[in-house]
Amino acid sequence: MQSHRQALLLSSSNCYGYSMLEFAKQEICSFLEKNNVKKLLFIPYAQNDYNKYTAKVKEVIDPWGIEVIGIHTYKDAKAAIHDNKAMFVGGGNTFLLLKRLYENNLVDLIRQNVHNGNLLYIGSSAGTNVATKSIHTTNDMPIAYPPTFDAINIVPFNINPHYTEIENESHKGETRDQRINEYLEQEYASPVLGLREGSILKVDKNKLVLKGVAGAVLFEKSLKKTEIAVNTDVSFLLNKQ
Amino acid sequence: MQSHRQALLLSSSNCYGYSMLEFAKQEICSFLEKNNVKKLLFIPYAQNDYNKYTAKVKEVIDPWGIEVIGIHTYKDAKAAIHDNKAMFVGGGNTFLLLKRLYENNLVDLIRQNVHNGNLLYIGSSAGTNVATKSIHTTNDMPIAYPPTFDAINIVPFNINPHYTEIENESHKGETRDQRINEYLEQEYASPVLGLREGSILKVDKNKLVLKGVAGAVLFEKSLKKTEIAVNTDVSFLLNKQ
Repeated sequence: MQSHRQALLLSSSNCYGYSMLEFAKQEICSFLEKNNVKKLLFIPYAQNDYNKYTAKVKEVIDPWGIEVIGIHTYKDAKAAIHDNKAMFVGGGNTFLLLKRLYENNLVDLIRQNVHNGNLLYIGSSAGTNVATKSIHTTNDMPIAYPPTFDAINIVPFNINPHYTEIENESHKGETRDQRINEYLEQEYASPVLGLREGSILKVDKNKLVLKGVAGAVLFEKSLKKTEIAVNTDVSFLLNKQ
Repeated sequence: MQSHRQALLLSSSNCYGYSMLEFAKQEICSFLEKNNVKKLLFIPYAQNDYNKYTAKVKEVIDPWGIEVIGIHTYKDAKAAIHDNKAMFVGGGNTFLLLKRLYENNLVDLIRQNVHNGNLLYIGSSAGTNVATKSIHTTNDMPIAYPPTFDAINIVPFNINPHYTEIENESHKGETRDQRINEYLEQEYASPVLGLREGSILKVDKNKLVLKGVAGAVLFEKSLKKTEIAVNTDVSFLLNKQ
């Protein structure tokens, strides 16, 4: 079945050398403008202070001519999804976020509304993790226990946000690459797209393109690791799961 | 009820400037000698190649006069726990380890045998995480979904192994301290002992002492952060949960 999904999956909201979300401003604005959307439903579940977090995002995005509204200000979270044409899921803790999305019965609803073309999805960091097949490749600490690691599945593979290969030589803990390869050893593992900070995966139906100001790295089984430059078409990832 | 637990909880097996487990050799040897134990049951579940992992540990520990035997070489994992007086749970991925301990019905059995004094416990990294109240403060990637984050509970608080405050300034992902404090914001959170690499928590009934070649940091609710030096008595942690 044809998916009508449209999404922007950001590695992070913050990127070295830019103010909050600045590197993604143009992509976000043209994404919403093209769809005549001027209101953005914000999901602050990845952090604990919903009002503070929403106010912080509102301060950045409202001046762009887009009105940010927190989902917690609606009486009914499911109605909020129905009433809006675009949502932004902010970063924080991925486990907390996924648990709260399930508690509010939003996972299936968001998946359906995105795939049938009624809802534009923007996610950042944890908000990007939950947009993928599963949260198996988050960097976050497991501070809360969600009912499953399966997620919204806007894209059927995994993403590692904040991807970096920089490590501290005197530290003997595992490197990011080692962690991702441990995942790839599991039989149920999908390919993992490591999005560097400043990187955006743009999803338009079955067309996937890497946008933003930084590249990405694709990890596949058999330890294959491929650099991916900005503006590369990565639609082939839809056939890799 | 009085617990007869005896355990050595290592931050890691590797420590900068030392060969594998070298920094812990004296503690491990005197711990086992004092109890007349010359055989160590090794649990390789945190990694995928049980034979390879067991051989690697055997190569280090057998020359100390202690015979290492992998639990996977026993027909019955539960019988292996009954038949041995000391176990060593190696590092790797904490989620994989906890899932496999539950799959083999070992969590309750190990807890009982350690608390009643029939089983000495040595853990390193992931093996230390599963010895605590829960795995909420592991650094590992959630590559497998365990039936719960609750763990063996030899000690009723949390440990963060490989603790470090060194961060890369150009990287905008969260710091270790931020992650631990996100956990402490949860109502069910316990204090978190951040064990630096080279650090060992020595548990002898209700006496807890920090051993090894590195210190630790204690994180508590209300953002309290306390440095703990080697040889400090931290038994007070048993009354903090």
